[in-house]
Order: sequence, then C-alpha cells, then structure tokens
Amino acid sequence: MNLLFLGTSAGVPTKSRNVAGVALRESKGKGWYLIDCGEGTQHQVLHTKLSLNSLNAILITHVHGDHCYGLPGMLASAAMNGRTEPLTIVAPAGIKTWLDATFEATQLSLPFALEFVDSDDLPSVEFERISVATHRLSHRAMSYAYGFTERKVEAALDVGKLTQKGIPRGPLWGQLKQGMDIEFAGERLKSRDFLISKHKPRKVVIAGDNDQPDLLSEACAEAQVLVHEATYTEAMAEKAGDFGHSYAKQVATFAESIQLPNLVLTHFSPRYQPNPHASPSIEDIRTEAQSVYSGSLYLARDFGEYTLDKSGHFSEVTG
Amino acid sequence: MNLLFLGTSAGVPTKSRNVAGVALRESKGKGWYLIDCGEGTQHQVLHTKLSLNSLNAILITHVHGDHCYGLPGMLASAAMNGRTEPLTIVAPAGIKTWLDATFEATQLSLPFALEFVDSDDLPSVEFERISVATHRLSHRAMSYAYGFTERKVEAALDVGKLTQKGIPRGPLWGQLKQGMDIEFAGERLKSRDFLISKHKPRKVVIAGDNDQPDLLSEACAEAQVLVHEATYTEAMAEKAGDFGHSYAKQVATFAESIQLPNLVLTHFSPRYQPNPHASPSIEDIRTEAQSVYSGSLYLARDFGEYTLDKSGHFSEVTG
Repeated sequence: MNLLFLGTSAGVPTKSRNVAGVALRESKGKGWYLIDCGEGTQHQVLHTKLSLNSLNAILITHVHGDHCYGLPGMLASAAMNGRTEPLTIVAPAGIKTWLDATFEATQLSLPFALEFVDSDDLPSVEFERISVATHRLSHRAMSYAYGFTERKVEAALDVGKLTQKGIPRGPLWGQLKQGMDIEFAGERLKSRDFLISKHKPRKVVIAGDNDQPDLLSEACAEAQVLVHEATYTEAMAEKAGDFGHSYAKQVATFAESIQLPNLVLTHFSPRYQPNPHASPSIEDIRTEAQSVYSGSLYLARDFGEYTLDKSGHFSEVTG
Repeated sequence: MNLLFLGTSAGVPTKSRNVAGVALRESKGKGWYLIDCGEGTQHQVLHTKLSLNSLNAILITHVHGDHCYGLPGMLASAAMNGRTEPLTIVAPAGIKTWLDATFEATQLSLPFALEFVDSDDLPSVEFERISVATHRLSHRAMSYAYGFTERKVEAALDVGKLTQKGIPRGPLWGQLKQGMDIEFAGERLKSRDFLISKHKPRKVVIAGDNDQPDLLSEACAEAQVLVHEATYTEAMAEKAGDFGHSYAKQVATFAESIQLPNLVLTHFSPRYQPNPHASPSIEDIRTEAQSVYSGSLYLARDFGEYTLDKSGHFSEVTG
C-alpha cells in the first residue's frame, strides 16, 4: 500500500500546500482510493502517475469545503478522460445532495454511474483487494475516519492440516491455495482454514477533522499507520479558539497510548511557515508531537509518498 | 486597465493551463474584477499580487463547471482572509441556486454579503470606475459577454463654452471639473456638458463560450479589445463535432469584419500542445487566426498580463 499526499493544508490552499486530499494506492496494479477531494485535487493528480480511470472510490470525511470542493471538477474530468466504469463514493449524505444540486445547476451529466455509500451508516465496504471500515469522529460537522485493510494476503498451504484431513496433493490443494472452497468426502471445506498468511494484513487509518483522537482506539487496532490532522500546536489551538480540531500533542499522546508504530500528521493551519526558522514554523508541530510520541512520526507534505510493505514496515518513498 | 489571465484551457485543466478565469484590474488603485472562476482560480490568484479584499465583482459567463467550480472555494477563502465588504456577483440565475445549495450542504456561512445581479436580465452595472454591460451569446447553456467601459475619463474644462455661458472663473469651474453639476443663473448645468475628455474611454469585451461571434458586433463598438474563446481550429472543430464553441478563423474573421484593433484568444482545447512543433500545436490556432485578421492578435497564456493605456494602446506586460 502506498500513500501519496495531494493536499496537506487546513481551510485554504497556500503556495506550497493544497487543501485536503490523499491517494491510497493498492500494492498491486494501478487501483487507488482518494480520501477527501479539496478544490484543486484534480490539478495535483495531473502531476502524479495516478489515472482517473483506475480510481476505485472516493471517500469524503466530512462536508466542509476544503475536503470536497474539488469533487465536481474531478468527476467532470474523469468523464472527459473517457471513464465509463462505475465509481463508488463513500461520503456523508450531504455530499450526495450537493452533487445532485451541482449536476443540475451546472448541466453536468456523467457517462459513468456513481454508487453512493452513506458514511453516516458507518458502512464496511469491500473492494477486490481492500476492505474499508468507517468510524465516527468528533467535529463541527459529522466527520469520519476510514480504515483500509488489505484483503487476500499472500498465504501458504497448511500442509500438516491438509495431510491430517487426508486431502490428496493435487488439484484440490491448488483450489484451496487460490482461495476457493471445495467439497471433499461429503464435507464443504473452506479455503481460509487451510491457509497460513505470510504476513499480517496491512492496515492504514485515515481520519477526517477530529478533536477527540481517543475515538480511534478501536479503529487503530492492528493498524500500522494512522493519518490524522494536527491543525495546530497546543498554544495556537488555545489562541485560535477554533473548536473541532486537534493539536499535535493531543494526537501524538493518543498514538503513544496505543503504541501505534507510525503516525502521519497533516492538515496544518496555513499560519505554520515551511521555513524551520520562521515563527510559527511547521517544525513547531513536529517538535510538540515528538515530545510525547516514541513511534515513527511523519509530517505530510504535498506529493510526499509513503509505502507500507508486506512486513508492515512504513517508510517515505524518496527520489 | 489590465488583463491578467488565470486560466486559458477549455473543459479540463492541463499541467500548464488552468480552466477559465481572467482578472481585469482598474487603471488606478487595487480594484479588480474576476471574469469566470473555474476550479483552482483561487490557487492561481495566490501567485499574483491580486487580493481577495480588493475584488469588486465576480462575473460568470455561464454555468458550465470549467467556468464556475472555483466559486465556492474562492468565497470561502475570501471569508477566511477576513473580507467583510459586500461582493457583487453577476451571473446566470443557476449560479445563485447552486451557491445557495452549496452553502447549505457544506455548512458555509460568509461574513460578507453577496449582491447577485442576474445576467439573464442583460443588466448594466455601474461600479465606481467601470461600467459593465451584458450581452447574450450562443452556446449549449445561456452564455454572456461582459463589456467593461472606463468611467470618469480624465477631462479638461471647455473654457470656450464656460466663457460663452458667462460662468465666472472660480469655484464653479472647479466643481464642474470634479464632475459635480451646478446651479447658475437659475439654471441647472451638467458637468459633462463642460468637459472635454482627454481620451476615448477604454473598453474591453470579455466573452464566454460562444459559437456565433457576430452576436458581438454591437457590444464591440468602440472597444479596443475583445477576449474570445477559440477552442479549436476549423478542421478540429469539425472533427470534434462539439457544438457551441468557436474556432480560430471564425472569431478572427468577425474581428476583421469590425476592424477590431486587438483580439485575445483563449479557452483552448487541451489537445493543443504548447510545443510549436507538436501536432496539433497551439501555434496552429495562431496561424489560422492570422490568416484572416490584420489587427494585433494575442494567444492568452496563464499569468499572461496585458495593459490597455489611456491612448487605447494595448500591449503585453513583460518581465
């Protein structure tokens, strides 16, 4: 699984950071998922290798504009790029209402179907290679986190169990290995009972705006990576008096409490300057988070790319 | 008056051209007008000296997404930048409907008033330094051109007329010079009858999508500059079979027929490559237009800036 950040600014774009958008790419093939779609996300995609034709789903965390205003343009461009495959959209119900109003007012008709899944129902959605779970957060608008868990983890046959059961080596073993259930000696045998996974399924949780990271305790079970907003440092959060967002220490304290191995912070207030010597600087966020978190900490930047390998090792893709 | 192009691509953004947006700046002060606001226009503005606080009005030519999807984000950012001054929006009625739906669905409430003017009524709108006229075009959706004419052109007193009328040199002359009407010898005298303009008012017409340039004959009377789409060359327009747009020769033929001094083409299909040796190349559009037009021809590019000086001379701002 790869994460490619398309926007890492809160509220408004800056010269170096766009508003929210992150691409999660499957480990095999070209399939990808877009989590949030702030204005200009399609422009960012133009500078990557991602294709709108291999986009499996768009998942929106909440209805605020900096997380969804890029959606109509993204869909219009997918249409003009010739997409015909249906597209899944997992989002709060307000997004469907808004898109319908947008299509009508701006005379947009798509040549592909949109399959809406209402995140207010906390759905689990199964794609071919990925399962998505939905978790409720705390924000001024209803906000959600999406957990992406790998399906079909590479597995070896449990030869001991097969032998014990008396299943002869041959086509039946092959079918079980390929994930097919079989009939044997009048009994239905499930593939998954005869497979040993070669590694733990990879799991990444990507959260929307949220002022209570603790809500993610269960969602983060077995996850190697959490992507969470850290709009402010603690002092700035108090000064801004802006409810509904987290500050760096708050998220990092949560991550430490559950011994999460990798934390990626994003959605930074535009007040934080890229220059490490400026005040306030984006480095203030890092320093504050590091003061309470002992795992691997990353501050997302636009076009920053990360990979989570089979062994669960998470690292930045360089070069 | 200055023109600064923020987007010059048709339908979808490319790596080098954003979708529609052009800023018209007043010759004095910081006031400006935004004509069309495709997705990402606010991102383009970040790379200019334009401020959302000195924006006088947004004028939308028609409801298609590549001309308006940047509007909600632009307004949200103006709000976050602290704008409190009311903002005029001249646009087809569908835009107001869409913005209202957007504000509700995405929980956006602006700290400044929007003053909507319905372009379907072909309004004339007076700003302090600029008069705007609206003209109907021909496209798949109702589409409009906006004509911007300078008000308060620098003027000298008509001393002969003042003397003839017996108005004594002094405060009354001063008032007339400043544009104030006066009472003299029991008669109401209009300032404008005693002023001689030092130059013709500057006038620029900016058109939306349109397949009948001839509709602009009247609108272009006394105009020094027309900005018009040239989505295709003639051969490509036939091949694309896309109704509602103009090709280069068509617009240039019209401009030649009315002896228009300056024509700026924009809204190019993404098929046209920036490389002059590519096929099709953006230079094909230039060549086709030049073959029938003897005035000054410009092909707009993103961040290309032009100035129209007092004498009516139009030129690209370089450096």
